[in-house]
Amino acid sequence: MAYTTPHLAACAQAIAAAGLRLAARGLTPATSSNFSMRLDDAHAAITISGRDKGALTADDVMVVDMHGHAVGSATRPSAETLLHTHVYQRFAGANAVLHTHSLAQTVASRLYASSGVIRFEGYELQKAIAGHTTHESQLDLPVFPNTQHMPELVEKVDTWIAANKPLYGYLIDGHGIYTWGRDMAEAERHIEAFEFLLNCELDLRKLRS
Amino acid sequence: MAYTTPHLAACAQAIAAAGLRLAARGLTPATSSNFSMRLDDAHAAITISGRDKGALTADDVMVVDMHGHAVGSATRPSAETLLHTHVYQRFAGANAVLHTHSLAQTVASRLYASSGVIRFEGYELQKAIAGHTTHESQLDLPVFPNTQHMPELVEKVDTWIAANKPLYGYLIDGHGIYTWGRDMAEAERHIEAFEFLLNCELDLRKLRS
Amino acid sequence: MAYTTPHLAACAQAIAAAGLRLAARGLTPATSSNFSMRLDDAHAAITISGRDKGALTADDVMVVDMHGHAVGSATRPSAETLLHTHVYQRFAGANAVLHTHSLAQTVASRLYASSGVIRFEGYELQKAIAGHTTHESQLDLPVFPNTQHMPELVEKVDTWIAANKPLYGYLIDGHGIYTWGRDMAEAERHIEAFEFLLNCELDLRKLRS
Amino acid sequence: MAYTTPHLAACAQAIAAAGLRLAARGLTPATSSNFSMRLDDAHAAITISGRDKGALTADDVMVVDMHGHAVGSATRPSAETLLHTHVYQRFAGANAVLHTHSLAQTVASRLYASSGVIRFEGYELQKAIAGHTTHESQLDLPVFPNTQHMPELVEKVDTWIAANKPLYGYLIDGHGIYTWGRDMAEAERHIEAFEFLLNCELDLRKLRS
Repeated sequence: MAYTTPHLAACAQAIAAAGLRLAARGLTPATSSNFSMRLDDAHAAITISGRDKGALTADDVMVVDMHGHAVGSATRPSAETLLHTHVYQRFAGANAVLHTHSLAQTVASRLYASSGVIRFEGYELQKAIAGHTTHESQLDLPVFPNTQHMPELVEKVDTWIAANKPLYGYLIDGHGIYTWGRDMAEAERHIEAFEFLLNCELDLRKLRS
Repeated sequence: MAYTTPHLAACAQAIAAAGLRLAARGLTPATSSNFSMRLDDAHAAITISGRDKGALTADDVMVVDMHGHAVGSATRPSAETLLHTHVYQRFAGANAVLHTHSLAQTVASRLYASSGVIRFEGYELQKAIAGHTTHESQLDLPVFPNTQHMPELVEKVDTWIAANKPLYGYLIDGHGIYTWGRDMAEAERHIEAFEFLLNCELDLRKLRS
Repeated sequence: MAYTTPHLAACAQAIAAAGLRLAARGLTPATSSNFSMRLDDAHAAITISGRDKGALTADDVMVVDMHGHAVGSATRPSAETLLHTHVYQRFAGANAVLHTHSLAQTVASRLYASSGVIRFEGYELQKAIAGHTTHESQLDLPVFPNTQHMPELVEKVDTWIAANKPLYGYLIDGHGIYTWGRDMAEAERHIEAFEFLLNCELDLRKLRS
Repeated sequence: MAYTTPHLAACAQAIAAAGLRLAARGLTPATSSNFSMRLDDAHAAITISGRDKGALTADDVMVVDMHGHAVGSATRPSAETLLHTHVYQRFAGANAVLHTHSLAQTVASRLYASSGVIRFEGYELQKAIAGHTTHESQLDLPVFPNTQHMPELVEKVDTWIAANKPLYGYLIDGHGIYTWGRDMAEAERHIEAFEFLLNCELDLRKLRS
């Protein structure tokens, strides 16, 4: 079933509102970051490239198909659109994808790039990630090498999934985080939880060194 | 004597207002944290589980009895409700309990979990904790192991009290802080003071290493 | 010449406004900090003890004489009132005194308490302190031991002045900063500059260790 | 062609608006920092010396010629006006110049003063600097010694340019950053990107030490 105009308008509104909240927390410096929502099986709404995320309106959101091509618009979608549509194709339950670019995300990605993963253990806030009911479990956040060529990243993500490892988000080295949720509220909760957990790990490294 | 409807409404209002202030300072990430006020000997008003603490209204507050069971409501109280009611049972002078989940609280709890206590000495701000009139005294904040089973935590707290050690709040490992006051203003002052003291201790550890 | 009622009202207003700005920057945790302005040779307007500095109004300000006694009011002035009136007595050009209690002020005071002074050199922002026209000069901020007995602190300050050392402000160990200016704007600029310089010194210590 | 009154008014408005945003992020402590826009080949609009950058209006902006002399005004331009007009003379494409004074800029300038340059590599956010299309390039930010004599600084900048090294901004030791853009939006994006990159480098130094 195809998306309706009111549905698109509601998603654009939700994306702009989330962007304002994330920008207010300093997660989207210098026009970085991009946000999307699934519209239907074949389409997603996504932020237009280069816009200031602290001043988003519904007009800064456009439609793309699942190959990342613009639909009904001459504007250019984010360079990383394929990473969003890839999430919608791999995770049937994902309806919102957020990519931010905070200090902690960037610094952690560089520190853990060589090991390829950050493992969180013993944090109560792991329970904020969907499917986690105790701090006693382990939560792995992979770190993939950065590239300006999106298909390479898509392949890294697919390799992780193919190994049957759970995936709730990933970092890109020197870049930021991708995470998602069944709706925008869950995706925002995941961003907030990963941002908190990354800051804890970095602070503990400074204190234990 | 049983609480009245206007009294409940006033408490719900005070809880929501405190929540907004604490969320604005970043102490309640990803729907964590919970807040309560004593209504009478047998009841407390407490935040409903899972709500966004940065957008609380009086509708996000419910009534529980001192065993942590919902009263007059089908909604689910916070999973940690028993820690709140336990405070009301042990401390006759406590009328508001706050649990927050800041970066400093979490990081400090992990660093000091093995020693089981953080001792503050020489800080003027120790005077912000009720009963302290000089920076020359010692202020101990215990750190208890985390568990998803609340009665275990209740027991740890009781053991501390049974040893006749003063108790103004406690940390849970990998989690956050519990503190309280004779009213909401005092409980908030205690949160603010402990948060400040924890940040001082962590910063000094980084500088003295 | 005695102060007038409109003059007192204007000072109370200026104190409340400065308090709101300083509280918004996190310099006044847990009802700490106090602020004053000179009214005439014999009187000053000062914040009442224990008020929340983030919600100050002109009603939270009272009059004291230069011995720190309340004038025309049954309320209690800040416990540290004598430190304010002492500045007005020693520095004819000082018309506003600010005492704040930030993380950096507290942490720096503890780190430098044993040496008794923090020396700033090579910072362009030293020029924000009245009388400094170049980053090539040296700016000394003394650190005095904390005490609940104000006359001891007054004596430490007098000893410093008697040694003909310039004085633009001072830290108290485990506590916060006192600084002043010819008007409230200059006093606030001094607070902001010292806060910035202290944060620079602490950060450089972490980076150079 | 000479600038028009409406053009000056628009530039003054843009400068004041940018100042408010930069001040809100804590980049302009204690009346430091200054901002300008090119009006025509012979004139620029620049902030008046000593104003609070967090409360700028169009009235805090004046006109100078390319030698830094006031035009049609008895007020004093910023002491560093020559650094602004120098950028307009050397870079035909620069129409807005921003100088801020953050903690990270000051601390980084002192740490890297002896090497004379900070090199950024592997950060996705390098792409926020005009002309950069990949994180794989290198971005050099020079650090020049501080001086109260502007012609000395102008000479250092000219020496850098004469060596055919790309220049997108520079730090002054113990001071802050200068950067620019084809319009105010680009200049602000550059400030935000350099501020982010400097904070990353400082944080990584703490973590890798």
